[in-house]
Amino acid sequence: MTTIGDLGEFPFIDRIAKTLGAHPDLVLGAGDDCAIVCIGGEECAISIDLAVETVHFRPDADPNNVGWKTMTAALSDIAAMGAQPRFALVSVASPPDRSLDYLDKFYAGLNAAAAKHDAVIIGGDTTRAPEHLCIDICVIGAANRQRLLTRGGAQSGDFLAITGWPGRSRAGLDCIERGLDHPALVEAHHRPEARIAEARWLGQHEGVRAMMDVSDGLAQDAGHLAAASALGIGMTSASIAIDPELVGYCTDTGDSIPDIVFAGGEDYELLFAFDPELAGTLLPEFRTKFNIPAHIVGIYDASFDGVQIDGHPPAQRGYNHFPKT
Amino acid sequence: MTTIGDLGEFPFIDRIAKTLGAHPDLVLGAGDDCAIVCIGGEECAISIDLAVETVHFRPDADPNNVGWKTMTAALSDIAAMGAQPRFALVSVASPPDRSLDYLDKFYAGLNAAAAKHDAVIIGGDTTRAPEHLCIDICVIGAANRQRLLTRGGAQSGDFLAITGWPGRSRAGLDCIERGLDHPALVEAHHRPEARIAEARWLGQHEGVRAMMDVSDGLAQDAGHLAAASALGIGMTSASIAIDPELVGYCTDTGDSIPDIVFAGGEDYELLFAFDPELAGTLLPEFRTKFNIPAHIVGIYDASFDGVQIDGHPPAQRGYNHFPKT
Repeated sequence: MTTIGDLGEFPFIDRIAKTLGAHPDLVLGAGDDCAIVCIGGEECAISIDLAVETVHFRPDADPNNVGWKTMTAALSDIAAMGAQPRFALVSVASPPDRSLDYLDKFYAGLNAAAAKHDAVIIGGDTTRAPEHLCIDICVIGAANRQRLLTRGGAQSGDFLAITGWPGRSRAGLDCIERGLDHPALVEAHHRPEARIAEARWLGQHEGVRAMMDVSDGLAQDAGHLAAASALGIGMTSASIAIDPELVGYCTDTGDSIPDIVFAGGEDYELLFAFDPELAGTLLPEFRTKFNIPAHIVGIYDASFDGVQIDGHPPAQRGYNHFPKT
Repeated sequence: MTTIGDLGEFPFIDRIAKTLGAHPDLVLGAGDDCAIVCIGGEECAISIDLAVETVHFRPDADPNNVGWKTMTAALSDIAAMGAQPRFALVSVASPPDRSLDYLDKFYAGLNAAAAKHDAVIIGGDTTRAPEHLCIDICVIGAANRQRLLTRGGAQSGDFLAITGWPGRSRAGLDCIERGLDHPALVEAHHRPEARIAEARWLGQHEGVRAMMDVSDGLAQDAGHLAAASALGIGMTSASIAIDPELVGYCTDTGDSIPDIVFAGGEDYELLFAFDPELAGTLLPEFRTKFNIPAHIVGIYDASFDGVQIDGHPPAQRGYNHFPKT
């Protein structure tokens, strides 16, 4: 008997995607950060995002942070298409013994993260769960028909860039689990930001050709981008922006900075391809406008498949819900 | 410490609904079968529906039936607004040891139920679950702006009617658990139908003033309808259409037919209020067109609150995910 655990997360998604039907108003189906459908002549970006207690968050996590982060993760998929969030629906399966105080704080976190980006929760479902919380959030946003940013569409020679500070969330999780004192990293893990305004601004530039959000780790997600354009991506570890706090963490722990940066997930930073002709202007303008780093981390290359880091395949993989043993 | 189990499912939903924000394109927020939003000048009905293994379905259930039923339950919320289903997103948290054969059959059931009503699955999410499947389906449909059928809007003196054969699903579940041989009831439990075409037809009639689908039991759901119109509903047990198979089941088991009919959930029949002036035409035309029963089961009444059955409050309650002990 073959199980979903044997097959792995992404081959399973590919397998299911092949069985899905067609619809005249479906612009972009399963396989990107959002599906895109046409409603009333408007293109809508729609995504859905699960979070399971003990898998995605710890039972002892602050419930306001759990709400904030699960909503942010869902909204980040809307950002990844360059779209503007509008509506969210939230399903919660809860053990009967979960306190109202916990759930009130959880919903306060959800509402705060949605409100920050002018989105509202319009509905949901609530049922009993045997043991652990299971949260599922569907988000709907307004896409820009002229500038639909999918994972594909990059050209050989395009630069790959990333916003912010990849690796901080992963290091923050390690700090929580190992009791290390790096509050900025812990905060980055608990309270990530969805890069909505940043993504919409990038989407206004013709030369920005592909985008996704980094949820499973920089190297793995770069692999998804490479595959979507049927190209390779050569990355260089030296060009990543390293947060000083992350340097301190790696000094304390002896961890390798590139390992953390390339394998760490849940950053919700934007990873995007752009025309090298914009190299002199796009990233400086981005940094000035948003006060967030944005650095080139690789170049699309037609001469190989997949991702290479400093000329070699990535040593570590990012997050996979059904890792092979 | 007060828990969600202490408060109960519906008071919890009311509590959360009060915290949600406003949006200029939100036509109808949480509290009905669907939320209604305006996108591109079109009104969309959107709902989300959880199903948890061991709570909503048995681990030994046929996976094709599980897929069919979970999708049907979600689509039934679209029917309840008189809307036409278009798109679905499906999240599945799965234990790693679940077989691909199980999951393939589950998705085949999902796809079949969606295709029957011209809807397609456009995306989803897949993650690991510690022990049991948790399924969440978001459905999006096209609502009829002129005839938005909410739970409210009935008038005193309006008739309340129900389609089909309420109670069959509940009796079918009992047959499965007690090993009784009533295949038609078991089939009604495993393979319910979403009344999409029926609901759209009803919605074309000006005199049909309120509607919902019966998922938690006839008496309980009639109570939701009564509250939404701030009226009472007087029901009579004698007027319900009783499936002959259900009569046979109650003869075998000694169960009370009215108890099964009023308390049983997961029927996904339509419960609707209509102008008594249509009494001579609406239901006969419905039966001719769809070859399904439709019977008057109650009358809206301004002289009391809630539901009375044969002049008394309902003896049994329908389904509540967090029942008081």
